[in-house]
Amino acid sequence: MSKLLIVGTVAFDAIKTPFGETDKILGGAGTYIALSASQFDIESGVVSVVGDDFPQDYLDLLTDRNVNLEGLEIVKGGKTFFWSGRYHNDMNTRDTLDTQLNVLADFEPNVPKNFQDSDIVMLGNLHPAVQLSVIDQVKNPKLIVLDTMNFWMDSELDLLKQVISKVDVITINDEEARQLSGEYSLVKAARKIRDMGPDYVVIKKGEHGALLFHKEEMFFAPALPLEEVFDPTGAGDTFAGGFVGYLTNTNDISFENMKNAVIYGSNLASFCVEKFGTEKMLNLDKHEVDKRLESFQALTQFEINLA
Amino acid sequence: MSKLLIVGTVAFDAIKTPFGETDKILGGAGTYIALSASQFDIESGVVSVVGDDFPQDYLDLLTDRNVNLEGLEIVKGGKTFFWSGRYHNDMNTRDTLDTQLNVLADFEPNVPKNFQDSDIVMLGNLHPAVQLSVIDQVKNPKLIVLDTMNFWMDSELDLLKQVISKVDVITINDEEARQLSGEYSLVKAARKIRDMGPDYVVIKKGEHGALLFHKEEMFFAPALPLEEVFDPTGAGDTFAGGFVGYLTNTNDISFENMKNAVIYGSNLASFCVEKFGTEKMLNLDKHEVDKRLESFQALTQFEINLA
Repeated sequence: MSKLLIVGTVAFDAIKTPFGETDKILGGAGTYIALSASQFDIESGVVSVVGDDFPQDYLDLLTDRNVNLEGLEIVKGGKTFFWSGRYHNDMNTRDTLDTQLNVLADFEPNVPKNFQDSDIVMLGNLHPAVQLSVIDQVKNPKLIVLDTMNFWMDSELDLLKQVISKVDVITINDEEARQLSGEYSLVKAARKIRDMGPDYVVIKKGEHGALLFHKEEMFFAPALPLEEVFDPTGAGDTFAGGFVGYLTNTNDISFENMKNAVIYGSNLASFCVEKFGTEKMLNLDKHEVDKRLESFQALTQFEINLA
Repeated sequence: MSKLLIVGTVAFDAIKTPFGETDKILGGAGTYIALSASQFDIESGVVSVVGDDFPQDYLDLLTDRNVNLEGLEIVKGGKTFFWSGRYHNDMNTRDTLDTQLNVLADFEPNVPKNFQDSDIVMLGNLHPAVQLSVIDQVKNPKLIVLDTMNFWMDSELDLLKQVISKVDVITINDEEARQLSGEYSLVKAARKIRDMGPDYVVIKKGEHGALLFHKEEMFFAPALPLEEVFDPTGAGDTFAGGFVGYLTNTNDISFENMKNAVIYGSNLASFCVEKFGTEKMLNLDKHEVDKRLESFQALTQFEINLA
């Protein structure tokens, strides 16, 4: 069985949307990535840190889904990373209301021996120094996938560029791709970002889908148009988790197979946004996932006979 | 050969974009629709009005492409409709700088006898009263397609709703679909709009593609990601022209064939935006169009074997 290593935050989130709000609930990039990847029959492990205020029940939710938590440090007397945000009416933009780094401030990742030979490494959004340290600890992975955001472009650009130069795939949203490249056209932006290192660039456009770039080829996966979007939190991480989970499971990192991975990622992300936080991802059944995959096919496949 | 009737403005446009600006050039919804539809081997005619300030050269550009202009009234001493607009940096939003209705103010459309039995009728964006009059003049067309915009929702909603109740397909942009339906979710918006009359709803999302809704089915065509977008003017009309041109040519108005029509429309629209005004559409060759259609297939087609 192929192995997936995930590094990313395991955290508390408090979320406000036009449809309601939550108290502190289970959140964090590492959590969403792991829950999404756990839809596939793979061996996965999370490297992260929490305080001892983090409930055992939340940890059990992950281990119940065969997510290995040997790499999850629990800091005695420490407080878990906390993020709070409010979404605007369009659900595409949000304000951060509060960020408490807590134990994340001094986090030094420790990749368990059993995951140092992981096939695929998913670097969730975190300080580039943490991402670099994880890259240094793994031995010849087949594929390293990086997720990051504008916050690190603003504050740690040099370090981030070092990380970018060492990865195979970068996932980034459209505005961030523009910021990183200085190009408005996403085609040009992707080309400039490929020049920084990654062979593959995935540009996430939220409700407008995701683009995969490789050399001069492009592939596009729409987001499934939904009746209701309750909470976009974690959608990008769920997408990434589906992407790497599928690639790990199929053990095939060709461009053709990455197209499928993008579709699987979009499919899983479409569930994530239908409930608050991780609720929907914790209660997904395989039948539902497969059925929606058929909707994705119906949504995008056509038959034109080209001469 | 199947017949397509087009009603829409034939006009002068003056356009400013971040890449440059034009003086008065050939424009108008009817023009863009006709140029796009002329890519197909069909019989098409335009119903519209211009002043005698409109150059014969511009009319020749249409008749050279087998567009019948019997239904184009030329008002002696009248001035042609003029629109001027400026696009913002994102190219998705624009300000109207000037609108001079001129001969359009008193326009009473006259469908030539030879086009009263058209198979497909394309009602380009115009006063709903003009659209209603054209509907009254045609005899049992197989399909009536309506394009409209928020301006008529604000000023002539009752009349517009009469038109909507009489058409088979409506094409409308995402913001307008939300305004017309009062629903933010495009899935819900399309359902409410279908309840107003049309069996098919096409929601145009500009650079984010187009959605086709029919009963509880959906189809999505992306916009082709481009190196450069010089001028979005006419893209929606070019899309509509490709859509109805393909349907007229294939003489098949099934949902399956409408998917192809949406792809053809998106394909042609992707050319329109690459130069100012109609320039690119006037110089398209079939080889180029077919080649890009292959790019559309590569962009969206994937092979997942569902159990």
